[in-house]
Amino acid sequence: MTNGSVRVGIDVGGTKALGVALGDDGSIVAQDLRPTPRGIDSLEPLIDTLSDLAHSLGASGRLGVGAPGLVTREGVLRAAPNLDGVAEFEIGRLLSERLGHPVSVDNDATCAALAEWTLGAAIGTTDMMLVTLGTGIGGGIVANGELQRGAHGFAGEFGHMVVDPNGPPCPCGRRGCWERYASGSGLAMLARQAAAGRRLRSVVERAGGDPEDVRGEHVRDAALEGDGEARAVIDEFGRWVALGLANLTNAADPEMFVLGGGLAMGSELYVEPITRWFAELLYQPNLRPLPRIEFAHFGPLAGAVGAALLPEL
Amino acid sequence: MTNGSVRVGIDVGGTKALGVALGDDGSIVAQDLRPTPRGIDSLEPLIDTLSDLAHSLGASGRLGVGAPGLVTREGVLRAAPNLDGVAEFEIGRLLSERLGHPVSVDNDATCAALAEWTLGAAIGTTDMMLVTLGTGIGGGIVANGELQRGAHGFAGEFGHMVVDPNGPPCPCGRRGCWERYASGSGLAMLARQAAAGRRLRSVVERAGGDPEDVRGEHVRDAALEGDGEARAVIDEFGRWVALGLANLTNAADPEMFVLGGGLAMGSELYVEPITRWFAELLYQPNLRPLPRIEFAHFGPLAGAVGAALLPEL
Repeated sequence: MTNGSVRVGIDVGGTKALGVALGDDGSIVAQDLRPTPRGIDSLEPLIDTLSDLAHSLGASGRLGVGAPGLVTREGVLRAAPNLDGVAEFEIGRLLSERLGHPVSVDNDATCAALAEWTLGAAIGTTDMMLVTLGTGIGGGIVANGELQRGAHGFAGEFGHMVVDPNGPPCPCGRRGCWERYASGSGLAMLARQAAAGRRLRSVVERAGGDPEDVRGEHVRDAALEGDGEARAVIDEFGRWVALGLANLTNAADPEMFVLGGGLAMGSELYVEPITRWFAELLYQPNLRPLPRIEFAHFGPLAGAVGAALLPEL
Repeated sequence: MTNGSVRVGIDVGGTKALGVALGDDGSIVAQDLRPTPRGIDSLEPLIDTLSDLAHSLGASGRLGVGAPGLVTREGVLRAAPNLDGVAEFEIGRLLSERLGHPVSVDNDATCAALAEWTLGAAIGTTDMMLVTLGTGIGGGIVANGELQRGAHGFAGEFGHMVVDPNGPPCPCGRRGCWERYASGSGLAMLARQAAAGRRLRSVVERAGGDPEDVRGEHVRDAALEGDGEARAVIDEFGRWVALGLANLTNAADPEMFVLGGGLAMGSELYVEPITRWFAELLYQPNLRPLPRIEFAHFGPLAGAVGAALLPEL
């Protein structure tokens, strides 16, 4: 970063593309967003949208983009469940040709990990993991003081670790993936299961009367108001979140988890059950420092902030 | 490594301590073993044994030791399920004082990963994982071209990742740990379950007639002779091994797995089911290169060879 030129990053989501510009000190000096183009012919309009957003934020010289899916180490978006028609999408090359300067591309959760590690909740750590708890679960890894991408760029797909081979089917084709339980849609499933068992009466009322309409936020709001049955569902949800975090800790021994994604909005509610269950589910919890578990400093902007930092890696 | 002095490594196991000496070219020029002292007052005798073994192999100037448990980044063996009385055992400091030269200590599976990555099956890789399938499961990680220890030295405890929260109890206190299924004792459990269901008649006969006496090697030997019911158990075992490998691949995206430990002895039997199930259980297997799965080049010596390389890190 030289001469005060602005660092711009864009986080491409399924519904919106969110951009930020960072000042020299890493603070967010501007942000902007555009709807993500939808439909089978949306790739060219997507390049238009990202180019427009980059211009509006003053990008010049370089740009970083976080993309929601498998991004190869060459910056090609191989597949993205929430973007129509994506397959081997050379988002970096196409956008770079349009803008006339280099564009760096990486997975959105990997970008968020970079942001939190460099400027956010995990400053100073050498081994940390970022876990986004949203509709699904994404992840980013810092190990031994370096951002990790894996051999092909696909590290951090934590959401599809199978935690119950006999569990509910996942759209990915397997059963019992972690994100079936520990994501926003997982919380909704646990709530609907409880409602089908004639629990959660007040939550079902809140959802309009049909247990099938219960969503995660209905449970969260009821639990925040002190509803005991809703709190029991939050506890079960916290156990599933903790199970995956414990598994990751057994594997990689991070000193910290940063939790991001939409569920971080009700953070005060989840921290206690996650922390309690984590100590139950980790191997030899009494013989090791437990990793800190905190929520993303940059909240929903973490992916865009990290994208802005990509060109400096 | 200078002046042809010999590099010596010792792998401390629950029943024996195995040492090797490496020549300048990395070849094993000598090996030796001693029984591991047992009993509550075994720590001082263990230092005696390791010192004796180091001398017999010509260690001078430095030594590496692989230890079976949680080893801190300072080389202290914090806990070891298969060594009596171990707690905060300063094996490195004590042995170093006895020998009069530095001693490096790390986890045994981490040592094995170092051996296979540096001199064995995984030469040239930047992202690989070693998984030891023995009585339990241990692991070692290389990511982004570096041996990974985690924040506290405890990375690679793959065996206690929970893969079925309602599964059988594990001595560690949790349920459904991966090593309940995918280790040597896991294979025996799957076989006893099959035998209790009146399958595996020939395997039960092989074990002496009582299903409770069936061990992994009875199933393996029967399967190698073509027994269909034994092969079905091996297939189920392969599915459990693959489940954990797929979870690790989703998390870390290695280009290769090296399988070590006692089960590598029947390798030709396990490779096909593990490989087949792996492609079923991995997220988006058609969109990515599948990691190679191979058996440890150094077999049961991998831990000792890697220990000999520790001082050079």
